[in-house]
Amino acid sequence: MRRKISLLGASGSIGTQTMDIINSNPEKFELVSFSVGLNMDKVREIASVHSPKIVSVMRFEDAVLLKSEFPKIEFVHGDEGLVEVAAFAGADILVNAVIGSVGLRPTLQAIRAGITIAISNKETLVAAGDIVMAEARKYNVPLLPVDSEHSALFQALNGENIDHVSRLILTASGGSFRDLTREELSGVTVEQALAHPNWSMGNKLTIDSATMMNKGLEVIEAHHLFGIPYDKIDVLLHRESIIHSMVEFEDTSVIAQLGSPDMRVPIQYALTYPERLTMQNPKPLRLEEIGKLHFEKMDFQRYKALALAYAAGKEGGTMPTVMNAANEIAVGLFMSGKIPFLKIEDLVERAMNNHQTTSVPNLEAVLEVDSLTRKMVYGMVE
Amino acid sequence: MRRKISLLGASGSIGTQTMDIINSNPEKFELVSFSVGLNMDKVREIASVHSPKIVSVMRFEDAVLLKSEFPKIEFVHGDEGLVEVAAFAGADILVNAVIGSVGLRPTLQAIRAGITIAISNKETLVAAGDIVMAEARKYNVPLLPVDSEHSALFQALNGENIDHVSRLILTASGGSFRDLTREELSGVTVEQALAHPNWSMGNKLTIDSATMMNKGLEVIEAHHLFGIPYDKIDVLLHRESIIHSMVEFEDTSVIAQLGSPDMRVPIQYALTYPERLTMQNPKPLRLEEIGKLHFEKMDFQRYKALALAYAAGKEGGTMPTVMNAANEIAVGLFMSGKIPFLKIEDLVERAMNNHQTTSVPNLEAVLEVDSLTRKMVYGMVE
Repeated sequence: MRRKISLLGASGSIGTQTMDIINSNPEKFELVSFSVGLNMDKVREIASVHSPKIVSVMRFEDAVLLKSEFPKIEFVHGDEGLVEVAAFAGADILVNAVIGSVGLRPTLQAIRAGITIAISNKETLVAAGDIVMAEARKYNVPLLPVDSEHSALFQALNGENIDHVSRLILTASGGSFRDLTREELSGVTVEQALAHPNWSMGNKLTIDSATMMNKGLEVIEAHHLFGIPYDKIDVLLHRESIIHSMVEFEDTSVIAQLGSPDMRVPIQYALTYPERLTMQNPKPLRLEEIGKLHFEKMDFQRYKALALAYAAGKEGGTMPTVMNAANEIAVGLFMSGKIPFLKIEDLVERAMNNHQTTSVPNLEAVLEVDSLTRKMVYGMVE
Repeated sequence: MRRKISLLGASGSIGTQTMDIINSNPEKFELVSFSVGLNMDKVREIASVHSPKIVSVMRFEDAVLLKSEFPKIEFVHGDEGLVEVAAFAGADILVNAVIGSVGLRPTLQAIRAGITIAISNKETLVAAGDIVMAEARKYNVPLLPVDSEHSALFQALNGENIDHVSRLILTASGGSFRDLTREELSGVTVEQALAHPNWSMGNKLTIDSATMMNKGLEVIEAHHLFGIPYDKIDVLLHRESIIHSMVEFEDTSVIAQLGSPDMRVPIQYALTYPERLTMQNPKPLRLEEIGKLHFEKMDFQRYKALALAYAAGKEGGTMPTVMNAANEIAVGLFMSGKIPFLKIEDLVERAMNNHQTTSVPNLEAVLEVDSLTRKMVYGMVE
């Protein structure tokens, strides 16, 4: 039996690599629905090879055009289209690879439809982790991590009793600016920020890696996915990104997952879990060729965004929502040249300082806080 | 319910650390039987605190003396005594921590009595791995590894399907002489050989580490414990001994177990499996303090004993029995000053060259080959 896959964000970095895995293993996987934003060539490329039942694009006019080209496929559009693709009942598993908290409602609808979630969209868990996890428990739907760090933790926890965990240790490469001082950081350009030393990934993620906000989002995501309190989640600088993360147990034993930087591995693991599958064009790890692995204590002064994320996570309620929304807008402002690099964390901090936390928000409250924060941060730079 | 433990080799390095764990967790573990060789003070120390039902010592006269001091305990002696302790039906688990192939018969009798084995006695699996594993399957008795490397592999395999394993990677510190050339090795003394850089362990094991025969024994042990062919078992030089071993899966994902060098961790894991237990006086791993981990390709020219072990393992049948017996005698001869260091592997090689392998030996054949090899190797140096 082939696993039927829905894919949100098929033209992005994770989406493209997910399609590689599906294309390499036609006997294992079947693409039944997907979404793309504006990249119509990508829709045509996928739709001409696969036979999805339903496809979502951002704009109504693109959906109409595509329907005339692929009359057997149902085309939908916009935010509602994303939800329709996500909740398509013909799927066994949804790969949620959109960027930003736009992934939140589709995730919730897929959970309510009983579809297993392979979650790459970390902003969803940051913005509304308590709500999403409560729904997942209620509908007994597994959330399988796709991030390399969380997949590493998930693999390290395989067969283990979560009650014996003493610490989750997320590794961090340090991002593209790891060797710069805070003073040097003040003048860095968008082009410099987009050159990540180890991983090939999307732009927003690369900027988040440079600020270390990405690791902050991951800390909050790990808290929700594994139900571990923040004081038991540590971040360790490890510039080679070979150990993808580790779990320390109460007997001091540490289980780690390692590998060459290759996002296809955690993506495929989520698709094949609990089994594994031979990797096409593999990049096997050869530690004897790498020679040395380095580890350093994380510097929370140097990486202020990480300190903000811990603070937001510990505060809980709507505070992580604010942090995430402010960060999304601030990163966009930096990428469009409107603010300097260090202003990203500055805007996030100001948004958080301005916010009065609601401890147990419902979904509407989360969405409203998210929306208000975005407006507020735009307002800060005008 | 406390786990009832039998312990073979209570006065050795593993035995002492096993007693530490039992003593630290009286609500979890109960010592019901044990063996000691000649160290009568150790017997008195343990017997006065615990209430074992049966205790074995090496000599008849010691057993008689001890019976007069501890009338409630049954004392047995010699090789038969070891078997009686091992097969004592009141135990849930046998920790087999004797050194050498003398552990073989007790292991087999415990398996037939349905007692779970925590196996530290690697020579048993090297000398008669096929026979021991067949009996364990027949009686459905788990063999839990106690060696740090095999415990690491066992933990890394937790929850995994063994069919997806592509490689077992045993790490090796390189032993006390890892920075010496083969020429420099020719003159090393017993005292130099007994100074291991990372681990505190028994003398035979320390010499085996210096020759790298220990890693060879571990390769053969891993082959039997996990049913993985030799061409999928690699050895990697890793001087810090922090990564205790790794499993590579067919999707290129690698799971490793790490920790500070502390034999109590794998011993305790075997006693608590599948659960874990907080470690008393823990030595938690702090990679940020260690800073760097090093990895190098294994040099089979430099470490000839390891090449011999792979050859013996691949040949199979009685050849590993010969290799192990020759090594036990040769190590004894080196420790008593009768042969130089490099003569150890030389004697092992000569014994193997002289041997005509029996492919599928029964236990009697194994024991006979073991005994004949010992005599032959003694003969080689007279």
